[in-house]
This record gives sequence, C-alpha cells and structure tokens, in this order.
Amino acid sequence: MATLKVPACVPSVQEDVEQLHEAFQGWEENEEVIISILAHRDAAQRKAIRELYAECYGVDLLKVLEKELHSDFERAVLLWTLEPCERDAYLANEATTKWTSSNQVLMEIACTRSPQQLILAREAYHARFKRSLEEDVACYTTGDCHKLLVPLVGTYRYPGIEADLTLAKSEAKILHKKIGSAEFCDDEIIRIFTTRSKAQVNATLNQYRNEYGHELVKDLEGHSDDAFVSLLIGTIQCLAYPEKYFEKVLRFGIHKFGTDEWALTRIITTRAEIDLKFIKDEYFRRNSVILEHEIAKETSGHFGKMLLALLGHEEVKEKENVVGFVEA
Amino acid sequence: MATLKVPACVPSVQEDVEQLHEAFQGWEENEEVIISILAHRDAAQRKAIRELYAECYGVDLLKVLEKELHSDFERAVLLWTLEPCERDAYLANEATTKWTSSNQVLMEIACTRSPQQLILAREAYHARFKRSLEEDVACYTTGDCHKLLVPLVGTYRYPGIEADLTLAKSEAKILHKKIGSAEFCDDEIIRIFTTRSKAQVNATLNQYRNEYGHELVKDLEGHSDDAFVSLLIGTIQCLAYPEKYFEKVLRFGIHKFGTDEWALTRIITTRAEIDLKFIKDEYFRRNSVILEHEIAKETSGHFGKMLLALLGHEEVKEKENVVGFVEA
Repeated sequence: MATLKVPACVPSVQEDVEQLHEAFQGWEENEEVIISILAHRDAAQRKAIRELYAECYGVDLLKVLEKELHSDFERAVLLWTLEPCERDAYLANEATTKWTSSNQVLMEIACTRSPQQLILAREAYHARFKRSLEEDVACYTTGDCHKLLVPLVGTYRYPGIEADLTLAKSEAKILHKKIGSAEFCDDEIIRIFTTRSKAQVNATLNQYRNEYGHELVKDLEGHSDDAFVSLLIGTIQCLAYPEKYFEKVLRFGIHKFGTDEWALTRIITTRAEIDLKFIKDEYFRRNSVILEHEIAKETSGHFGKMLLALLGHEEVKEKENVVGFVEA
Repeated sequence: MATLKVPACVPSVQEDVEQLHEAFQGWEENEEVIISILAHRDAAQRKAIRELYAECYGVDLLKVLEKELHSDFERAVLLWTLEPCERDAYLANEATTKWTSSNQVLMEIACTRSPQQLILAREAYHARFKRSLEEDVACYTTGDCHKLLVPLVGTYRYPGIEADLTLAKSEAKILHKKIGSAEFCDDEIIRIFTTRSKAQVNATLNQYRNEYGHELVKDLEGHSDDAFVSLLIGTIQCLAYPEKYFEKVLRFGIHKFGTDEWALTRIITTRAEIDLKFIKDEYFRRNSVILEHEIAKETSGHFGKMLLALLGHEEVKEKENVVGFVEA
C-alpha cells in the first residue's frame, strides 16, 4: 500500500505548471510550493506536469529543479519527479559508477521491482545511457558479487503465482546441502535465486523451513561478514519479504553514525507509490517507534518536509488551499 | 529483406477464415488452400485470421491445423502460423527439452533477434510455459555452453548504432590475448559477447581485424571441434553477419547425410518476413546454385511447396485466383 496522498480534487496540469513556474521566479518559499505540488501527484500526474512544463517554457522541469534546489532536498525532489523506470535506471547507473557504486542498490532494484518494471528500467537505461544495464553491471562489478549481480539484473522472471512444490522440495534440498558445506557462491544457489519466479522462490523457502525447522536465512547469517553472503541474504529478503528488507535499510539509515540521507531518500521515493505503508507498519513492529517521528528527528528543513510528505504525514492541501497559499 | 509475398489485393479476413474452414471440411486439396492463404499473409494478417477463426468456430486454428496436417508440412505450417514471438518461445522451449535439445537453436534465437524481439519472445515464454526462458536454459544446459547460453538468452542489449571505438580497441586486445592463450570459456569473452550491443561487437571485430590482420573467427576455427568454441563462433556470426550464419545452416541442412527438414523449416519460417532475401543471395554467392532449386530437389509434396512459397518462389495468387481456385 502506498503512502502518497493525492488531493481528492487535483488542480489542472496547467495550474500546477503555472504555480511551479511562478515559484521559481520568486525569492522565497518556492520550496513549499514545490512540495505541495510535486509530493502530492502520482507518477502519471508528474509526467504530465513535466511534459506540459517543457511545452510551455521550453525547458525540462528537472533541469530547473536541479538549478533551483540544493543538497539532499534537490536529490529527493529530482528522484521523486523522475518516472519510476527512469529513476531506477538513474539509481542503477549511479550504483555502477565509481564513488557511488553499490552492489546493494543494484540487487535491490533487480529483486524488489516486478519483472515488467525491471524490463522498463532496463529500457530507460538504454535510452538514457546508450548502454545496457547488464553491460555496465558486468563491467563494473567484480568477484563473487559479480557472479550474482549479472544474472540478477538480467533476469525476466515469470510473474505468475503458480509454484511447483516438488521442484521447491528438491531445490530446498540443494540449497541446504550447498549452504551446509559453505559453498555459498555456488552455481546452483545463484541459478535458483536469479531465475526462479518470486512465487517459486517463496515456495522453496517454505519447504526449507518445513524440512529443516528454521529459515534458510538463519543458516547464512553466521557468515554475513562475507560480502557475497550479505548480498545473498539481501537478495532473498528482497524476493521474499521486501518490506522487511526496506525496514532494515531505513533502520540502518536512521541509526547509523550520521544519518544516511541517500538511503532514506532512495527508499522513500521509490516505495511511496507502492508499499511504503507496509514498510512503515513493519518499522513500527520492529522498533516500537513511528517511522515519521524518526525521520522528523533525523532530518531537517525542506528535505525533511519532502520525505514526510511522501510518507503521507503532511496534510494534503486541497485545491483551494494550494491556490490560497500561493496567493498569500 | 523479406521473401514473403502478400497479394496486392488481399481478401478480407472473413473470406480467408471461411475458405480455410471450408478446406478443412473437404476430402482433398485442402493443403493447397492452406498454402495459398497462410503462406501469403504477414504476421499481423495471420494473427487476425487466427483470432477471427477462434471467434467464428470456437476453436484455435492451430489445433485444427495440428489435427488436419502431418509430419514436416504440419510443422512448417504451425511454426509459420504462430506469431513470431510465440514461435521463438516454442522453438526455444523445444531446444531446452530432452531429445530436441539444441544449444545452437537457443544461441540463434538469442543473437539474431532484435533486443525488443527477444524480450517479446521471453514474454511469450512466460505466457505459454509458466516459467522464464532463462530459468529453463539455466536448468537444462550444462558445462561451458551453459556459461555462455544463460547470459545470452537473458541479455537485453542496447539497440542503438553508436559504438565506442576506444572501448572496441581495448576489448579487441582482451579477446586477442584470451584466444591466443586458448582461454575460450573466459569470463571476459563471455561478458563481451553477451552484453555489448551488436554495433559495439561489430566495432570490436573490426578493430580486431585492423589490429591483427585477420578475422577473430579465424583464430577460433582451428578449435571448432570443441562444442563451446563452435557455439562461440555461431554467436559471433549471428551477432555480426547473421545472413552468413543462416546460409551455413541451410547449406548443412541440405547437404548433410539426409536432409535436415527441421533446420530448413526453422530458418525459412523465422526469416521469411525478415531477411530471407539476403540469405538467398548469400546462398547463391557461396554455393553458385539457387536456394529454391536445392530446396525443390531435397523436399517433396506440400512441405516443399510450403517452403518454396515462403521463399517467394511460388507465384502469388491474387484475390480472384484464390477465390476461383477454391470454387473450382
């Protein structure tokens, strides 16, 4: 379930575009207007705004936002304003680039998007970077993680919910044997988690628990200092219970030494339209504190306001209010 | 360039469907009608015929064809009548199945289709087999060929024509070094041929020739007894000069001990709407005989007629003639 709040009565795209344009001309408080509009429009509405803005003023709204805004707030607004597939392509490219490289982000994109969304992200990657995602991942990742990441970003999993229980049983056995003998970066382990449908992976994990009395991930956790095993655990979590994975990323992002603004921004902008409500619930269950309170404590200024708006915390301004606000 | 000949004045879909249905009721010569209609309609027209047939008679045209026809003719008509992406999915599945397994067919589909066509084939695979193509390829292929085939079928190459010449130079050097030390199944060789765009692969092959004075494939041919090297040569040919690859498959299919009807049918049905004219030209250049003459010699009956029709050899029956023929 999403946390994005769109007003019941949305202003016309023309009105949104004009207000944004007007906000960029003024000296102050344009950030409030940007949040009040962009943080309360869904992907299709933001796309329409971006298109009409380019048509009216001959410049990409993203370029204007890049020029007008700064720092973490800029990053949050830009990521949010991008179309979901463009955003994934952008984040994935960043994750293959020196200084910002991240195996975790690549795995997260490959495993938590639907098969169709991942194909769209790969298409957007072509359009923006004139290369393929798997080409860059194959080129810029190394070692054991490379062996997992290349097939992970290249897979186009079957999206159906059917699962073959006999297969699940036999593959649970393979996994148990390999993990038991500490052959983590084994071809069979990689094959199972990079090609099977999410429903099939889930069935296999259930069979594992039935057969061996505990979660598969438990058998890996003792070895999580190893970068490959840690990535494999993330892969399994992202495939089977993504809200738990995202909760953990947010928890670490909030509590580690110095807030990880990039992680918070990435999770909130990519999940606000999808399952951020479940992630919030999971956060409360795991930490006994409300995610928004933590975010409010750890962030400040317009950046914090933007994240809270996407978390559905801020009251939605209805048409009249927004207009009133700008006119004030 | 295609060889498919569609009449300038095509009968309505309704007329086609009625004639096909009538042909299935009769005792003789229905094969002629089937060829005169189906072998002269493009993919969109065949799709429309199949849809209307199902609507009018409550049964899939493919099921009827399967029941009415036999042997090689049945296979040719069925493969041709399928939508291109469904046909690729069908052939790829067959190629992962015991008794009909073929690394060559998997490689051919992965490398000669456009990136978008391969995605559509993978989507059709989901729909028909309730699994993903890469899942079955990862499961049912083995050894070194497995290492090449899994990323080959999973790749979504950048489709643009840009090529980075500096990169081409550096990757030509890598390839030369690895091939020189007989490390054929090397990760770098696999990475380059499974992820780079076709334009980039081509630029790399050109740089190889410029730098080392001969084709890269020449350096592999001495080792072509090895199944992996043979598959790698096929991969390179399919990516860089598919018409030469297809010519070779046809040549071997015609001249080997006993005609390889499956290979002829596969190449002719999958290329008739795309580049069979170029393949025919290449065949003549290489063998100094006309492909149709060879096909006519090696095949017989309706099977031969069907292949010749797809090769553009048979005269197209215009609307009046077709109607006249059926009424005769």
